Amino acid sequence: MISFAGGLPNPRYFPVEQVTEAAVKVWRDHGACALQYSTTEGYLPLRQYIADRYRKRSGMNVDTAEILITNGSQQALDLLGKVFINECDPIVLERPAYLGAIQAFGIFQPEYRTVHLEGDGVNTWQLEEELSRGDVKLFYTVSTFQNPSGISYSAEKREKVAEILERYDTILIEDDPYGELLFMGEEIRPLCSYRRKNAVLLGTFSKIVAPGLRLDWIYAPPEIMEKLIIAKQGADLHSNILVQRIVYQHLQDQDLDQHIRTVRAVYNRQRDLMVEMLERYCPAEVQFTRPEGGMFLWVTLPEGMSALTLFEEAIKENVAFVPESAFHVDGSGDNTFRLNFSNADEAMIEEGIQRLARVLYRRIEKG
Amino acid sequence: MISFAGGLPNPRYFPVEQVTEAAVKVWRDHGACALQYSTTEGYLPLRQYIADRYRKRSGMNVDTAEILITNGSQQALDLLGKVFINECDPIVLERPAYLGAIQAFGIFQPEYRTVHLEGDGVNTWQLEEELSRGDVKLFYTVSTFQNPSGISYSAEKREKVAEILERYDTILIEDDPYGELLFMGEEIRPLCSYRRKNAVLLGTFSKIVAPGLRLDWIYAPPEIMEKLIIAKQGADLHSNILVQRIVYQHLQDQDLDQHIRTVRAVYNRQRDLMVEMLERYCPAEVQFTRPEGGMFLWVTLPEGMSALTLFEEAIKENVAFVPESAFHVDGSGDNTFRLNFSNADEAMIEEGIQRLARVLYRRIEKG
Repeated sequence: MISFAGGLPNPRYFPVEQVTEAAVKVWRDHGACALQYSTTEGYLPLRQYIADRYRKRSGMNVDTAEILITNGSQQALDLLGKVFINECDPIVLERPAYLGAIQAFGIFQPEYRTVHLEGDGVNTWQLEEELSRGDVKLFYTVSTFQNPSGISYSAEKREKVAEILERYDTILIEDDPYGELLFMGEEIRPLCSYRRKNAVLLGTFSKIVAPGLRLDWIYAPPEIMEKLIIAKQGADLHSNILVQRIVYQHLQDQDLDQHIRTVRAVYNRQRDLMVEMLERYCPAEVQFTRPEGGMFLWVTLPEGMSALTLFEEAIKENVAFVPESAFHVDGSGDNTFRLNFSNADEAMIEEGIQRLARVLYRRIEKG
Repeated sequence: MISFAGGLPNPRYFPVEQVTEAAVKVWRDHGACALQYSTTEGYLPLRQYIADRYRKRSGMNVDTAEILITNGSQQALDLLGKVFINECDPIVLERPAYLGAIQAFGIFQPEYRTVHLEGDGVNTWQLEEELSRGDVKLFYTVSTFQNPSGISYSAEKREKVAEILERYDTILIEDDPYGELLFMGEEIRPLCSYRRKNAVLLGTFSKIVAPGLRLDWIYAPPEIMEKLIIAKQGADLHSNILVQRIVYQHLQDQDLDQHIRTVRAVYNRQRDLMVEMLERYCPAEVQFTRPEGGMFLWVTLPEGMSALTLFEEAIKENVAFVPESAFHVDGSGDNTFRLNFSNADEAMIEEGIQRLARVLYRRIEKG
């Protein structure tokens, strides 16, 4: 089975030896301190590092006190749900939306509303229409190389969305796991940097160090941070201090930018190959995105063709993907699916896309 | 400042070198696997180890599928709150109750009811009265060496409480962080082992390996486990896989029972000394528990004397403790406080209790 279904970074580029060395140093230099109970906010030098990196990358003026360490972005979403969402509160998601957010927020039983995602970001006309109803609690977006679509908001769209959110005084939750995985062009400024009031930004070491460490963060202004810290204290007291210290040591010893350049180059090559294979082998009726970063491609089938049915046939040909109805809170989007290119080598991509193409042709012939 | 306030295990007995060795082995043998995304339920061999240990310690017939790894017991409480508590659901706690549970459950806005804790466990007459009202969702207990009181339920009381819970078909949440820290006598069978239906047991590596690892677990029957796994998936996807593998390796390489015997002997000595000092120096009007395990002593002042006021005076004498009104959801318990003996060496205990005694005498003289 060749699977393009997962959302995994490529484990070949996990810095195993470097992290091992960092861990040994932590134990040598800090001993039992690295194993004792610790603070809810997270390891101070690590929070400082994150704040500094925002300053360096995007010129954002981030204070260490505005950074809270979490167990994956998933916990960040859970804490934000706890702080912001009461039962039946309307919240706006992109269509399609990140599955993990639907799961995390779902437990607080909001009323989901969705706004269509276009090639350059969310449809701002629809967004404004939703917000003008006056009852929307928050807008959640993965604005850069979105999961599942791979779409990135243009600078103009960021400007426009920020302006609309400001006008309707709506909370922005911007999830940015893929911003560092940029294949070309200039660093992309988070939507959050266009406005600061009521804006929350999530970041992660999952894609630039390793995901098994479950080390992510929330950047939020003081009045929101205060509530998040109380929620985090109730949720798990604090994140793993040992791993926080190891990752901090690792970041001190290694050149993260160099590592990111390597990962970017690899994913870029894999994306190029997947696009090339899709162009060469797939029926012209099938559309797909050409993302400039991240880990995913988004495929759109001709109207009326079900990705779920296609999936069942693809499995028989030993190739897998994620049908996108999962990413739609209203069960729509049945003619789209997600392909992952980060965790697939070149032979897998060449063979897997050809298998997929065979299934697609059969399906289209059947009508 | 001599502080008996914290709830920390003694870091001198953290197995720093052994955990380092285990970590290096994990990286050598498993490499990138130890850093990739993993399963929500937790690392299978570790769950198997936990199930086996229950069998060995208490003869409990625990299946691996009934164990879910969590980030500290605090996350376990949060997940249980999510699964069981709707706004205004009455839940029964001990009086005093564990502060972390009050914080974790509080976010789901239950109606707290409390049952008095006696020397041998909860007052069963009061418990029955509460349950007979027919609307109680769950009963939460730290039945062995309770935090804050140090009290342990007797076997008779466990039997009786289990029978009452069974009769009223009430969910039992038993939190057992201290059961392994037993100073004398036979292993104490968890309350959960007296009945299995609707009973959930929490356990932890915080007190027998180290707390900074945030590695705990929930033991729950399949119908509850199913809901907990969905909640955990939304809450943080999965716990740190690296640390799960390291702790598993550590448990393979080391004799945990030998380590626990060492910790028990140290805490026992510190408890003995604290009791001796309290007996020697403190006014006869002051009562205190003599726990047979765990990490805490519970002090009761003469009726009408405030532990909060005493605390303010004690701070001036450079000795600290936790006034227990924090452990009461109704703000009562003002004449009691908690002393921690696990994280205090002998010199600290001798000097600290003498300081405390001076403050007590002054307070009692003032009336």
